[in-house]
Amino acid sequence: MPDVRFDADRVRRIGLPEAVFCTGKTPIQIATATGAARAAHGRCLLTRLDAAARAALPQDLREALDYDPLSRTAVLGDMPSADATDPVAIVTGGTADLAVATEALRTLRFSGCPAVLYADVGVAGLWRLMEIRESLAAFSTVILVAGMEGALFTVAGGLLPGLLIAVPTSVGYGVAAGGQVALNAALSSCAPGLLVTNIDNGYGAACAALRARGARS
Amino acid sequence: MPDVRFDADRVRRIGLPEAVFCTGKTPIQIATATGAARAAHGRCLLTRLDAAARAALPQDLREALDYDPLSRTAVLGDMPSADATDPVAIVTGGTADLAVATEALRTLRFSGCPAVLYADVGVAGLWRLMEIRESLAAFSTVILVAGMEGALFTVAGGLLPGLLIAVPTSVGYGVAAGGQVALNAALSSCAPGLLVTNIDNGYGAACAALRARGARS
Amino acid sequence: MPDVRFDADRVRRIGLPEAVFCTGKTPIQIATATGAARAAHGRCLLTRLDAAARAALPQDLREALDYDPLSRTAVLGDMPSADATDPVAIVTGGTADLAVATEALRTLRFSGCPAVLYADVGVAGLWRLMEIRESLAAFSTVILVAGMEGALFTVAGGLLPGLLIAVPTSVGYGVAAGGQVALNAALSSCAPGLLVTNIDNGYGAACAALRARGARS
Amino acid sequence: MPDVRFDADRVRRIGLPEAVFCTGKTPIQIATATGAARAAHGRCLLTRLDAAARAALPQDLREALDYDPLSRTAVLGDMPSADATDPVAIVTGGTADLAVATEALRTLRFSGCPAVLYADVGVAGLWRLMEIRESLAAFSTVILVAGMEGALFTVAGGLLPGLLIAVPTSVGYGVAAGGQVALNAALSSCAPGLLVTNIDNGYGAACAALRARGARS
Amino acid sequence: MPDVRFDADRVRRIGLPEAVFCTGKTPIQIATATGAARAAHGRCLLTRLDAAARAALPQDLREALDYDPLSRTAVLGDMPSADATDPVAIVTGGTADLAVATEALRTLRFSGCPAVLYADVGVAGLWRLMEIRESLAAFSTVILVAGMEGALFTVAGGLLPGLLIAVPTSVGYGVAAGGQVALNAALSSCAPGLLVTNIDNGYGAACAALRARGARS
Amino acid sequence: MPDVRFDADRVRRIGLPEAVFCTGKTPIQIATATGAARAAHGRCLLTRLDAAARAALPQDLREALDYDPLSRTAVLGDMPSADATDPVAIVTGGTADLAVATEALRTLRFSGCPAVLYADVGVAGLWRLMEIRESLAAFSTVILVAGMEGALFTVAGGLLPGLLIAVPTSVGYGVAAGGQVALNAALSSCAPGLLVTNIDNGYGAACAALRARGARS
Amino acid sequence: MPDVRFDADRVRRIGLPEAVFCTGKTPIQIATATGAARAAHGRCLLTRLDAAARAALPQDLREALDYDPLSRTAVLGDMPSADATDPVAIVTGGTADLAVATEALRTLRFSGCPAVLYADVGVAGLWRLMEIRESLAAFSTVILVAGMEGALFTVAGGLLPGLLIAVPTSVGYGVAAGGQVALNAALSSCAPGLLVTNIDNGYGAACAALRARGARS
Amino acid sequence: MPDVRFDADRVRRIGLPEAVFCTGKTPIQIATATGAARAAHGRCLLTRLDAAARAALPQDLREALDYDPLSRTAVLGDMPSADATDPVAIVTGGTADLAVATEALRTLRFSGCPAVLYADVGVAGLWRLMEIRESLAAFSTVILVAGMEGALFTVAGGLLPGLLIAVPTSVGYGVAAGGQVALNAALSSCAPGLLVTNIDNGYGAACAALRARGARS
Repeated sequence: MPDVRFDADRVRRIGLPEAVFCTGKTPIQIATATGAARAAHGRCLLTRLDAAARAALPQDLREALDYDPLSRTAVLGDMPSADATDPVAIVTGGTADLAVATEALRTLRFSGCPAVLYADVGVAGLWRLMEIRESLAAFSTVILVAGMEGALFTVAGGLLPGLLIAVPTSVGYGVAAGGQVALNAALSSCAPGLLVTNIDNGYGAACAALRARGARS
Repeated sequence: MPDVRFDADRVRRIGLPEAVFCTGKTPIQIATATGAARAAHGRCLLTRLDAAARAALPQDLREALDYDPLSRTAVLGDMPSADATDPVAIVTGGTADLAVATEALRTLRFSGCPAVLYADVGVAGLWRLMEIRESLAAFSTVILVAGMEGALFTVAGGLLPGLLIAVPTSVGYGVAAGGQVALNAALSSCAPGLLVTNIDNGYGAACAALRARGARS
Repeated sequence: MPDVRFDADRVRRIGLPEAVFCTGKTPIQIATATGAARAAHGRCLLTRLDAAARAALPQDLREALDYDPLSRTAVLGDMPSADATDPVAIVTGGTADLAVATEALRTLRFSGCPAVLYADVGVAGLWRLMEIRESLAAFSTVILVAGMEGALFTVAGGLLPGLLIAVPTSVGYGVAAGGQVALNAALSSCAPGLLVTNIDNGYGAACAALRARGARS
Repeated sequence: MPDVRFDADRVRRIGLPEAVFCTGKTPIQIATATGAARAAHGRCLLTRLDAAARAALPQDLREALDYDPLSRTAVLGDMPSADATDPVAIVTGGTADLAVATEALRTLRFSGCPAVLYADVGVAGLWRLMEIRESLAAFSTVILVAGMEGALFTVAGGLLPGLLIAVPTSVGYGVAAGGQVALNAALSSCAPGLLVTNIDNGYGAACAALRARGARS
Repeated sequence: MPDVRFDADRVRRIGLPEAVFCTGKTPIQIATATGAARAAHGRCLLTRLDAAARAALPQDLREALDYDPLSRTAVLGDMPSADATDPVAIVTGGTADLAVATEALRTLRFSGCPAVLYADVGVAGLWRLMEIRESLAAFSTVILVAGMEGALFTVAGGLLPGLLIAVPTSVGYGVAAGGQVALNAALSSCAPGLLVTNIDNGYGAACAALRARGARS
Repeated sequence: MPDVRFDADRVRRIGLPEAVFCTGKTPIQIATATGAARAAHGRCLLTRLDAAARAALPQDLREALDYDPLSRTAVLGDMPSADATDPVAIVTGGTADLAVATEALRTLRFSGCPAVLYADVGVAGLWRLMEIRESLAAFSTVILVAGMEGALFTVAGGLLPGLLIAVPTSVGYGVAAGGQVALNAALSSCAPGLLVTNIDNGYGAACAALRARGARS
Repeated sequence: MPDVRFDADRVRRIGLPEAVFCTGKTPIQIATATGAARAAHGRCLLTRLDAAARAALPQDLREALDYDPLSRTAVLGDMPSADATDPVAIVTGGTADLAVATEALRTLRFSGCPAVLYADVGVAGLWRLMEIRESLAAFSTVILVAGMEGALFTVAGGLLPGLLIAVPTSVGYGVAAGGQVALNAALSSCAPGLLVTNIDNGYGAACAALRARGARS
Repeated sequence: MPDVRFDADRVRRIGLPEAVFCTGKTPIQIATATGAARAAHGRCLLTRLDAAARAALPQDLREALDYDPLSRTAVLGDMPSADATDPVAIVTGGTADLAVATEALRTLRFSGCPAVLYADVGVAGLWRLMEIRESLAAFSTVILVAGMEGALFTVAGGLLPGLLIAVPTSVGYGVAAGGQVALNAALSSCAPGLLVTNIDNGYGAACAALRARGARS
């Protein structure tokens, strides 16, 4: 039985292709999984590919990848042209949340979904959110990316009508180190109907947005 | 300044009415908030109203409520007739998860959203999920309610294409007591695109489903 | 050596009288400590005196107390008239935070410090904070009382210039049960210069406000 | 008294030889313990020997070892020929679990027990388990190796009749980092009769399988 | 869809009947599940049925049950006669562990498996274990039940050759309250090949012993 | 094999008699263990015997006990006269720590060791410790009992030369609830050579003092 | 929308300029934020700029910074001359707390507030605090910086009348690693009116002192 | 005020000299503190001096130190000749515990106290403890050093009469990583009268043994 079995059927079952999550895989295993994905779908998304792991890949694979170091994502094959309609908004609290937000953004675009990024909207400077509030209210899905105390989730949750996906990040220090505080703040928000992903899970947030968008289309 | 200020404007901003969360409120405070809600909207939903708190309410309010002891929810005023279209599915892992599932169900129905309950679908008996798999795949939103180890979330996540909302419950003992294991299992699921609420938060799951449905309509 | 030794000298050292913290004390021990406080200062504040403990006190003491069941505080002796100047503002996120807020309020008034309560200012309905923002900005000290995810702390921290004292409360359920989420949110807020007390510590927040006020006078 | 005392009698008492656990030992201590094991039994198993520790070993020992970098195990002396009967199955959820699975596999083979590896059977792609279900049901002992949310444990537990040993792995991120979520999922599974080892303890799972097999023989 | 769906097929799949876990179920739900079990198998085991829940059962069911208050187990229908061969040993560290041990014992006997109880064998008085060591070494499976620091698991693990199932109990106070210390001690034991269940899971330990025994028969 | 086996030999091995720890034992089990202790030694100490458990004891046993409700200890048989020499000091931080301190005191006296109690020496009023500092410095062993933040441990540790045994108590609220903060403060004290017991373990502290005293005699 | 949006208006709203928190920012992002701050205010404070991040800055920015490696702070532009009046005291428990204390000191001086540092005042050597007690009592605000068990907070809290800001540090090992013990000790201190910041948050403590000082001026 | 203030008076107050704890100190700070200690006492003990910190010391200091890399301790000045009487025993569970044990050993010898090391006495091979049991019973103080599940503490606690000091170590993986399991096992041991230090605190255990020995002399 082979060590790496790609779930090529996943896209038929749930509408989402399997991505290659690179953490904990050897270069050979990454190459094998990527090859299987390309064989099945003609293209492939790799996530959590840090610089060292990328450098260890076989040269031809490494050079064929469209790699983004901030989000640690890579795309093999062409990006589709985005649909013109029903884009997803991605909002970040601080500069350090951009890595996770970009993982979400690149996942959406890999799937042909348009996405718009609004950066640095932390609510300690509330005017930053208020000045884009009406723009955000027009999106059917908004992904909120924030670390530290995650107050952005609740304030946005009280202002915006669409589907809200909170992505807590590991940005923070002291009690906030690792992202557990932002995660718990999202889960216990007094704003109704917030939904939450694992810490730093930009990929998962994008997949959820694609699920909701698929149900709308 | 009054002690209880009802957010009557919420429905205009985010499409969801404020419910009266009864835990930690005195009977007078519950009655005041309920009165404000009725004045604003003509009807009101109360959550987490346990039997003792209900018994302590003023008699006329208590008798006017449509109370469900399992979910600890109460409705003041009429239930709307449900729309015929775009229902939400609610799936529970075990019998003890029904209280939370019913909180979600009653919240949806209070908002005019049809909902269908599939009970006792724990994946230790996998046939129970497999025999309703095709039915579930037709829903644009599925709320999954499970405690203990929460394996239902991942198995359903690999089979169903719609928006999936995982509600971990506090059902369990030993390391699972309080629901943290089910919560963490939902958050770290290897199935892509699962979204998660706080433990036992059936109300929040319903609000999220309403957000997604509003975006679809 | 006696079992209960009242620190009568405390007011000289740090400007704050010792209060009788009643949790874990027998009725006799409460009465003894209260008597020592009265002997030293002519009056006394009791905190965390729940209904059962109060009922078990000697009758003459019980009847001499000005007892408030919501905050579980009692005052023996006269309340001083409040100074007219330099009041402290107390802001609560939700109705269930009123018990803790009232403990702070009664502690301030016991010490002759005027205090103003602003209730139900949770930021999921942001207008509630915005409409009192200018009033709050005029206070040299603001005590913020909130449970659940504690987003109020950060939003207020970005809007108000005075000394801000965050009091997380144990209001919440699921991951927020017990108040640890609100506490950690306050500690890791991205708003600069927030200070924090233990969970539910309205008494401590009031003492801190008195320290700051003493330094101003 | 010497610093390293090898428990040469262990095999007589409990049927399992002592292995040399290398984490936290200096190269000299590893060499001493290995020498004692070879003196007692003619051969020796080393676990948790990472690449740096191996490189620091005395050259003759280093060259005499049959070293596997993925599982960080080394064998000194000959591998026995495996019995033909009563093999143990080892099943992994994902590619990154292979290191732990291989530690179990090499421990079994070192002890003369045949073992069969089934890789990449995560239940987010349920067909992968279903297509080997009947094969697995024929084993008297199945070792299940999975990280993240560990849903494999419960699904397998509801399908397979033999002795099931769940080995949670430290594969995961966010709340799943370190393996505690997979561990707790295994412990609180609603499938009856699952048994669990410490996180990443492939060696211990193999020892347990050997205990069960010894009792059968 | 009914609220309670009994997994009558379970015995065919995995050799273990489904028991009715009563915590969190209403009396009606317990009665329904029990009825389904009796219809499928002619008999039924109920676990975690505390005195109050038992008192609330319908009278005919309550009177038909063979109830044991210490273990909170009940049997509906006849106990089978135990096989004469291959019994399971159950060893407890302290008197307070007997409730959990008895849950395991009754589960085994309900399934026709003979079981022998050795009580009060805590290793702070090591002679208690040493004097039964040879007897215990003859069992192919030994269930070890202990709370507090769980040192029994390791000492037994170094002396006994059979399959060892450690059941940590919630007996203890301070840091040991709830059983997490005993659980972690079992998981991190330096004795090789110990397997572990959830805290207080006597039922699960018995099911695991039955799995191992089934594989032997 | 009997359910309760008293370790009558313990006093010979380690110089300490076994006490009957009552939590989690049925009245019959308590009576059995007490009877065994009396048979072996003529007298017996019971700990953690709360009022309800005491009330449920057989009448003759209940009446024969010298019971102290504050410490929940009971003595069967005579208290020895204390030696005149080498007493142990017990110091408490606050009034609510007296229950644990008295458990230690009664355990010492049951063993013939003189003990002196210094109550209410919390270091927020430092003069209380400074005025007894010289008296305390004369004891060869000092037991320190404190809850909340446990600062007493460190201050005493910097002032006193004898053996210091820190007993953290569960007195506190918010983050200090349950005693973990006081425990960790004791463990991480910057005063050298503090030793620590489990939370609320007055009995254990007394046993340790007896061990040290035995070694001195 | 730009990735980095500087909150130039903050100083008007709350009297505190935004600092550039460097952890998790790329060199370009740090330079961009610093440039925006300089444009708005003519000067800028950078915090958590470790040596590697500093080395990666553009050369002209790197050379323009007044960098302090111990506190990892940098100042761009001139330090104001300190006011002569109302200084803040900063007290540290041990040598390793100096990094955090210096972050507070440099933040205060950047804002024109005089500050005095008292180092190495751990209460295991109580004389060190007692000999500066009267000096400290004259400050209206005292910042207390301590790790390990944080006993300094309580002892100072019982001796000093001014506003007290406790900054727990991550100095410690074992249970104290990371600073959670010192944090919890500060939060649960029995000295009244202590206020607390996140672990290692010297910057926040200084901002809080500036808030209090602003309210006094 | 200087940054480093050596507590030269400590030996007079509590009989123990202050050691220089090197973690978190700069080379200059270490040299300053060491110089102060030498000036006060003529000699000095340094702990937690890892190889990199040692290499960064001024050359003359570095060369003057008697450095032991395993325990990371260094001695400046002469070791006293040990007293002939009343030695302390140090017992380790496994080889990896030797670093902590040696820290205790060197601290004792620095203070003129004889100490005997018994290594590798883990109770999974019980004979290793039983064969030295009588030797150990003759010591008035025994320091027990163990990681993982810490079962050694309880077994020794039931066999030995003297003062027992449990030092949990950070040796372990999975749930045992960091030493919390061994710590909690020591704290919740069912053997009476065990005392416990922080994780890896060999220095503290030695200081405690010196306190007890001082009280005996």
